[in-house]
Amino acid sequence: MRLAELSRRSGVATATIKYYLREGLLPPGRQVNTTTAEYDEEHLRRLRLVRAMIQVGGLPVATVREVLGHVDDDSLGRSMRLGAALWALPQVQEPDEEDEYVRAAQQEVAALLDRLGWQNAKLLATVSPAYRSLVVAVAAFRRLGYEWGFELLASYAQLMHEVARLDLDFVETHPSEAEKVETAVLGAVLTEPMLQALRRLAQEEESTRRYGFE
Amino acid sequence: MRLAELSRRSGVATATIKYYLREGLLPPGRQVNTTTAEYDEEHLRRLRLVRAMIQVGGLPVATVREVLGHVDDDSLGRSMRLGAALWALPQVQEPDEEDEYVRAAQQEVAALLDRLGWQNAKLLATVSPAYRSLVVAVAAFRRLGYEWGFELLASYAQLMHEVARLDLDFVETHPSEAEKVETAVLGAVLTEPMLQALRRLAQEEESTRRYGFE
Repeated sequence: MRLAELSRRSGVATATIKYYLREGLLPPGRQVNTTTAEYDEEHLRRLRLVRAMIQVGGLPVATVREVLGHVDDDSLGRSMRLGAALWALPQVQEPDEEDEYVRAAQQEVAALLDRLGWQNAKLLATVSPAYRSLVVAVAAFRRLGYEWGFELLASYAQLMHEVARLDLDFVETHPSEAEKVETAVLGAVLTEPMLQALRRLAQEEESTRRYGFE
Repeated sequence: MRLAELSRRSGVATATIKYYLREGLLPPGRQVNTTTAEYDEEHLRRLRLVRAMIQVGGLPVATVREVLGHVDDDSLGRSMRLGAALWALPQVQEPDEEDEYVRAAQQEVAALLDRLGWQNAKLLATVSPAYRSLVVAVAAFRRLGYEWGFELLASYAQLMHEVARLDLDFVETHPSEAEKVETAVLGAVLTEPMLQALRRLAQEEESTRRYGFE
């Protein structure tokens, strides 16, 4: 398809597509003559991914370029390719190792992973931004004197494991490795606000079931 | 306790506590003489809540004041008091009713609530920000051509219903209505980043279980 059709099918303005091409976020089309290039379904798919990261996720172009570098790196196995792409997404602040609440939270998270039998996640602890995000979140609770029990934390973790199984089952329905990784990135950018909205809506449903509408 | 002890126990600087008092985010202490006031455990609890909203949630003072107004409104029944406090928290952008994807998403969300049997949430649809957030999130998927099936959406919703049951069970462990509402607000501010971290960590655990460490 020509640039005009790529624009029409993606809903992205041609000037914006040209900008993504210049920035290397979209691979060049196949040149048919000096002024015209042909684009295919892969361009359309890539354009949607770039659009999701920039428009919905609000990511800077440099981050998008880094994520795409991992998406396209077929020298990696599936786990590391998924991991590298997702780890390049923006993360929360780093834990401050000097802070007493952070040190206590590290022990609590390590105990949680043992309790859950998440031995692989424990092995990844030193490199995983998700692990550090969890330490920061648990330290924030404890610093504020929030008395949220360990067993409750484990129950939430088990539900999130169910969510992660759905995430990966969906990723696996896609045929190529590149599409699998793209879907995982899209999922991270798009589904987090959706899960948050579903949780708040479920709270409303459950609250009115338990206490009525007053 | 005196201001100095309130500061020590909460970890909040006395100048900051004085600022919260001036802004009406913290009720005045009991005046024991012209220069000294006494504070109690309720002040400490309130201070932690204010701290969570401002420091962890990054909320502006005006929003915190509005949330607290609902937390303290004991003329409301439990559902409405929880709802009013949570609805005052920042929400995503409003759906654009003129947009074709938004209109399609409204129908899809209505069908989802029927499929789930969330009849109460459906009744609240016209007033609930969570409902509008979900419409915006579903419209974003569809606009980007993300082929996420309806049944998958329903499966995520059912897991979020389990999360909401844990949320409300924990809220119910607190004795007074005011503490129940405070806990719900703290939960919304503090647990969203934690659930997100748990989900990403669970994805790593599940991905390495399925595909190994490469």
